[in-house]
Amino acid sequence: MPSTKRKIINDPVYGFITINHPLIFQVVGHPFYQRLRRIHQMALAQLVYPGAVHTRLHHSLGAYHLMCQAVLELKNKGIEITPEEDVAVKAAILLHDVGHGPFSHALEHVLLPGVHHEQMSLRIMEAMNEDLNNQLDLAIQIFTGNYHKPFLHQLISGQLDVDRMDYLTRDSFFTGVSEGVIGYDRILKMLAVQDDELMVEEKGIYSVEKFLIARRQMYWQVYLHKTVLAGEKMLVKIIERVRYLYSRGEAASLIIKSPVDHFLNHFTGEMTECSLEEFCRLDDEDVLFGIKYWSRHSDKVLSTLCTALLNRNLLKCKVQEEPVDENFIAGIRKDIASRLNISEEDATFLAFTGEAVNTTYKLGDERIKILFKDGSVKDISQVNSPLIHQTLSTPVKKFYFCALA
Amino acid sequence: MPSTKRKIINDPVYGFITINHPLIFQVVGHPFYQRLRRIHQMALAQLVYPGAVHTRLHHSLGAYHLMCQAVLELKNKGIEITPEEDVAVKAAILLHDVGHGPFSHALEHVLLPGVHHEQMSLRIMEAMNEDLNNQLDLAIQIFTGNYHKPFLHQLISGQLDVDRMDYLTRDSFFTGVSEGVIGYDRILKMLAVQDDELMVEEKGIYSVEKFLIARRQMYWQVYLHKTVLAGEKMLVKIIERVRYLYSRGEAASLIIKSPVDHFLNHFTGEMTECSLEEFCRLDDEDVLFGIKYWSRHSDKVLSTLCTALLNRNLLKCKVQEEPVDENFIAGIRKDIASRLNISEEDATFLAFTGEAVNTTYKLGDERIKILFKDGSVKDISQVNSPLIHQTLSTPVKKFYFCALA
Amino acid sequence: MPSTKRKIINDPVYGFITINHPLIFQVVGHPFYQRLRRIHQMALAQLVYPGAVHTRLHHSLGAYHLMCQAVLELKNKGIEITPEEDVAVKAAILLHDVGHGPFSHALEHVLLPGVHHEQMSLRIMEAMNEDLNNQLDLAIQIFTGNYHKPFLHQLISGQLDVDRMDYLTRDSFFTGVSEGVIGYDRILKMLAVQDDELMVEEKGIYSVEKFLIARRQMYWQVYLHKTVLAGEKMLVKIIERVRYLYSRGEAASLIIKSPVDHFLNHFTGEMTECSLEEFCRLDDEDVLFGIKYWSRHSDKVLSTLCTALLNRNLLKCKVQEEPVDENFIAGIRKDIASRLNISEEDATFLAFTGEAVNTTYKLGDERIKILFKDGSVKDISQVNSPLIHQTLSTPVKKFYFCALA
Amino acid sequence: MPSTKRKIINDPVYGFITINHPLIFQVVGHPFYQRLRRIHQMALAQLVYPGAVHTRLHHSLGAYHLMCQAVLELKNKGIEITPEEDVAVKAAILLHDVGHGPFSHALEHVLLPGVHHEQMSLRIMEAMNEDLNNQLDLAIQIFTGNYHKPFLHQLISGQLDVDRMDYLTRDSFFTGVSEGVIGYDRILKMLAVQDDELMVEEKGIYSVEKFLIARRQMYWQVYLHKTVLAGEKMLVKIIERVRYLYSRGEAASLIIKSPVDHFLNHFTGEMTECSLEEFCRLDDEDVLFGIKYWSRHSDKVLSTLCTALLNRNLLKCKVQEEPVDENFIAGIRKDIASRLNISEEDATFLAFTGEAVNTTYKLGDERIKILFKDGSVKDISQVNSPLIHQTLSTPVKKFYFCALA
Repeated sequence: MPSTKRKIINDPVYGFITINHPLIFQVVGHPFYQRLRRIHQMALAQLVYPGAVHTRLHHSLGAYHLMCQAVLELKNKGIEITPEEDVAVKAAILLHDVGHGPFSHALEHVLLPGVHHEQMSLRIMEAMNEDLNNQLDLAIQIFTGNYHKPFLHQLISGQLDVDRMDYLTRDSFFTGVSEGVIGYDRILKMLAVQDDELMVEEKGIYSVEKFLIARRQMYWQVYLHKTVLAGEKMLVKIIERVRYLYSRGEAASLIIKSPVDHFLNHFTGEMTECSLEEFCRLDDEDVLFGIKYWSRHSDKVLSTLCTALLNRNLLKCKVQEEPVDENFIAGIRKDIASRLNISEEDATFLAFTGEAVNTTYKLGDERIKILFKDGSVKDISQVNSPLIHQTLSTPVKKFYFCALA
Repeated sequence: MPSTKRKIINDPVYGFITINHPLIFQVVGHPFYQRLRRIHQMALAQLVYPGAVHTRLHHSLGAYHLMCQAVLELKNKGIEITPEEDVAVKAAILLHDVGHGPFSHALEHVLLPGVHHEQMSLRIMEAMNEDLNNQLDLAIQIFTGNYHKPFLHQLISGQLDVDRMDYLTRDSFFTGVSEGVIGYDRILKMLAVQDDELMVEEKGIYSVEKFLIARRQMYWQVYLHKTVLAGEKMLVKIIERVRYLYSRGEAASLIIKSPVDHFLNHFTGEMTECSLEEFCRLDDEDVLFGIKYWSRHSDKVLSTLCTALLNRNLLKCKVQEEPVDENFIAGIRKDIASRLNISEEDATFLAFTGEAVNTTYKLGDERIKILFKDGSVKDISQVNSPLIHQTLSTPVKKFYFCALA
Repeated sequence: MPSTKRKIINDPVYGFITINHPLIFQVVGHPFYQRLRRIHQMALAQLVYPGAVHTRLHHSLGAYHLMCQAVLELKNKGIEITPEEDVAVKAAILLHDVGHGPFSHALEHVLLPGVHHEQMSLRIMEAMNEDLNNQLDLAIQIFTGNYHKPFLHQLISGQLDVDRMDYLTRDSFFTGVSEGVIGYDRILKMLAVQDDELMVEEKGIYSVEKFLIARRQMYWQVYLHKTVLAGEKMLVKIIERVRYLYSRGEAASLIIKSPVDHFLNHFTGEMTECSLEEFCRLDDEDVLFGIKYWSRHSDKVLSTLCTALLNRNLLKCKVQEEPVDENFIAGIRKDIASRLNISEEDATFLAFTGEAVNTTYKLGDERIKILFKDGSVKDISQVNSPLIHQTLSTPVKKFYFCALA
Repeated sequence: MPSTKRKIINDPVYGFITINHPLIFQVVGHPFYQRLRRIHQMALAQLVYPGAVHTRLHHSLGAYHLMCQAVLELKNKGIEITPEEDVAVKAAILLHDVGHGPFSHALEHVLLPGVHHEQMSLRIMEAMNEDLNNQLDLAIQIFTGNYHKPFLHQLISGQLDVDRMDYLTRDSFFTGVSEGVIGYDRILKMLAVQDDELMVEEKGIYSVEKFLIARRQMYWQVYLHKTVLAGEKMLVKIIERVRYLYSRGEAASLIIKSPVDHFLNHFTGEMTECSLEEFCRLDDEDVLFGIKYWSRHSDKVLSTLCTALLNRNLLKCKVQEEPVDENFIAGIRKDIASRLNISEEDATFLAFTGEAVNTTYKLGDERIKILFKDGSVKDISQVNSPLIHQTLSTPVKKFYFCALA
């Protein structure tokens, strides 16, 4: 007789998201989870797509909703998922991104050199697990891939997991870019499990095709849009410049009385208890506040970058398939140095090049398995679809060049 | 021969928004306008509706888009609108909200006592006008209602203006509350002008009916949702508590090196040049950063409020039709004071009551005019629609009571 | 271990509709059900709303989908619904409209004088029950309101049943009239059962309000749109004229070798086995084909009506709140008679008046029950919402007048 | 001073469609155009996608709407389009499909052997032109490609015309197949004209990519879905069987007193005045009525096919990449002949094979031209996009096999 508390949350993307298990209430209500409310899902994509201001919290809730549907579908198909596994896999997906820092991918490895957000998610899940009397034990086992039913882990993290399904759907919704629309509901209906592995029924092949192409289109049209890139690289340069100035002994003028001070000045790459605690208080606001503060700093490079980013007066950016010529950059830098009356070394913060690689997508060696009507299973790369082959083999690297206009 | 620069912006609500006039580019590119990117349209509504994180900048762009359509429709109907008026009314709508401060209505009259956001919009438009060589003269005339074609002003600010049409549509879209959906495109098609006054064709009466009801439903279901109210009133109490502590000489522990310091400590209600300059650097981030900072303050009341708001651990809130009994509140306060070991005066920050009034809507005496097929014009209150009468006469005041659980 | 056949059907309104029970497959595959594919849901509304060509079959599937969700919600809330009841209530909703004849409400009581479509639904369900070895026994019990759990019947036919929820949603979708959008998903989440009666939780009150208003707006803006009315009344007049000509002995020129011949010539109001069999072969096509055929008939009145309807050259129609003056109509008829060189009696087919009443909605005395948090139950008319009172007491009758231009 | 009549039509796909020119009113009001109301856009796709019952009239209106937007965009970009050209190109797109017969592509070349629907469109436009005092002269010139501004013709019929943009968008909308969603609004914004040729700006390349992929996905997932194919091929076999029976002298039992009789019995391939007149009275209803009538015919093959189609009891269908083995088919036919006690020749109507080719799309040698920022123009096949190359070179032929189960 279910008399548990039950809550429904309006979601413009899926309609309503239902929460009806005590553990899920505890996870969602925990300060570590609520912190995701202050981290934008798409970093600075809003500089181009003004609607793209949704949060990591919203994305996590969405992925949780898709997980609820996926679990229900699989159960309806006769796959055994115990009540404990059911809630654990839902808790795990809610927390899969809890280790993201300010501006997510845009500053990953920059604010916390050498630390991957999935490691942090695990650290924070463990800390939350202590608060919740080990109720997250199973969720952690599934999250880390150490549970004896791999398909539960694959629903969280695989080529066709609910994480990807939600962010493509959600990012496409909030940017208004129709090219990213996927048939997530159809894919969910087509999920199957055989030998404890997650797969897709043969009939779902067009939807998978669509999914892969949408991912690729969002990749180049949105995530690596040259103007978004310009903004996010300026963010990186700001952090780097602040670090540089710290190293020159200018701490007093830089400190903003925020946890970000710790990561700009002291952090060595080792995630101590203290660093973890600071991290859990850190979010987009700290960096944004810093940028506003530093926009009035006496260092011309720093104030230029901060002011320009605040006013959306971005560096010019060009994306191309070939590496950028070093002589060309050197010339630009010389010019900037002379115009701004700064050193050429300083000018490297205002004119720079790099590789535009997709850090959003894990294009690893995980593969999508297709379950055929006759019971056989094939990897998607063996399926007769030229579009899929093409998409899977599409190169994922371009080169960018940004410079002060 | 239009060879001007032209830009299209993706909007999940309307599809594409087009910018194609040099003055519009200048307005949108101005730092005062870009500042709206850092002010949430719906203050803390996201505590209940996680998708409602869209910005004032996005709303302004949307209202601008509807204005483009309205102007086109009216021209197609033979109404004379000169090219100068065309761009001026578009610039004016872009800037109609430029005077909003942090968290818009939620902190209006709190951060800047005695200052209305429309006054500020005018001040900032005037400042921007200086930067733009008086190109905004006509826009300002229209905005202030001093132009000889009143319908242009009414498109910006009236009972059925593009501001309202956009925010209902946009807020409904981002919250996912279908009750707020209006037929904005139909209303736009039904706009008419007679004797330089804006009106709606008779055939549009059902859409107007729908608009008024949607407004009323959004009012109670979203804007004055008791949990949203709780969060926003906590915000107010935080500001009041900081002011109180300032007045007790605790400035050193409160200053966060942000323009908000000025308004918390020094601001007298007079909008000097200096205050205006500080205001133009002020946005949601300053207040949010403050809350994070003050959550570790030694004042128990302040830290309690800040921590609770950050972690979405909100005061309990009740909305009712009758005023709240003073004795009841006094009892609650006594209890809180004893539990937290604070004075009863301090407890007034943690248990309080007030009127839930709609500050979002201007329910003034402006009226919607209906143009009948026979050429006659009636005020909507004279139209034979019981639903409209009912909606127009619905009371707009309730009473709320918030207290620490 | 569910290894049953399972089918998903694309629905533009809800995404996917799932069929996964053998009995449901049998019902959907039965010729009596497939016949609904050839009956338009909205009769001639497509003359004004070109998208409104969806079928009764599509509506039935949609109502079935909502029923699946409603049943799931109620079960999740601890209401006992046995597997037999589960499938029975779904079969019943699939078949609730199976007794509709050509053009549904537009010709109800015209083609089959004295026969209500719900009676026919029951007759056809009984016939189908024979084919299906009495598997529909329980469905019929629920449909007729003879089952000891009234809430199951109320889900099919009540003030807030899934039938109404689907047709408002679907008709609004296919017409593109946003005024008819309701929050069906929210209403479904708010359904509750107490003492075996269906009710709505207090929190759902705004959605119910919205539902009632949407219904009223669709009523006047779409279902009784004057042009739709004109078309549908022409349809009625065509049938009446054919009957009149039959009575004058002109059968040979009227017969189209279709089951409709039976109902135009022989049907007495008694639904014999033979009439039932003819009815089950009858659909919109028969009437449409007749219209095309009779458009070349030698009777001027008949050919005029048929040709005009085919070419959407409709009678002029006026809807008003007062009855139409008889002298006025007489004058018009005289004029038409003289212009067309026909008798004044004949002219009554080309100029006529009547009451526009809502036959689509059952505005009976069934009531919506609201379940309050404290466990008390109130009828909606006792709830403190002026809008609801207004809507419930809105008159449902107007007068129309149609005449050849 | 535009004081012309003006009408807006609700369209669930685009919102509102505006008609505001006397000639457009005349075209839309003409019986030849209204006939499209009785021809389904997607033939029998509704057997799989129940929502896909929209009409050719609706599609024409939609294409007209996109044309209005395209023309406006081009004018805003400085392309000269005179008022006469403006209305002519809109009239032409409204009429581009006016020559479609019952069930469009499914019966093209079957009911009228040797006649292409575009020829018929031209014939009917010419007939309508007579009724309209040659007001369609320019529209016909543009439609036939004989006007000196080719881009106007290309908007109607080219690789990226508004016809295709509408049907992909509309068919995807009504089927609910998200894979067919295209960014039509973005493509329209990216249209350009150079040297009187229609092209797409470089920035629109992703949208074109998406468009081509969507087309391919709709092709295989919807238009050539094996169940849709089964239904449509049964339709063909019904027509062929009726013809065969006519040739055997069984006219009396086949005639349904409809224009379709003419095309089943007498039509020789030559489109005489008489045939044209009959054609203009012919639509889906005639064929559907025939099927209902013939479902009770004494010929077992004919009645079997008709009854099966009516009850959606379709032939089993298999689509494959290789031609179907003739011996295999022969075996199946033998089996059917023996089961039904018919000749093996008769069984060819109940078990047959053929090529599934895309007759919907004109995959001719027309090409999409891309306009680069530097002013150069390239054919899309020269653009660096592996996905586009892949899509353009995808084979368009498969083989199907249908047989009575």
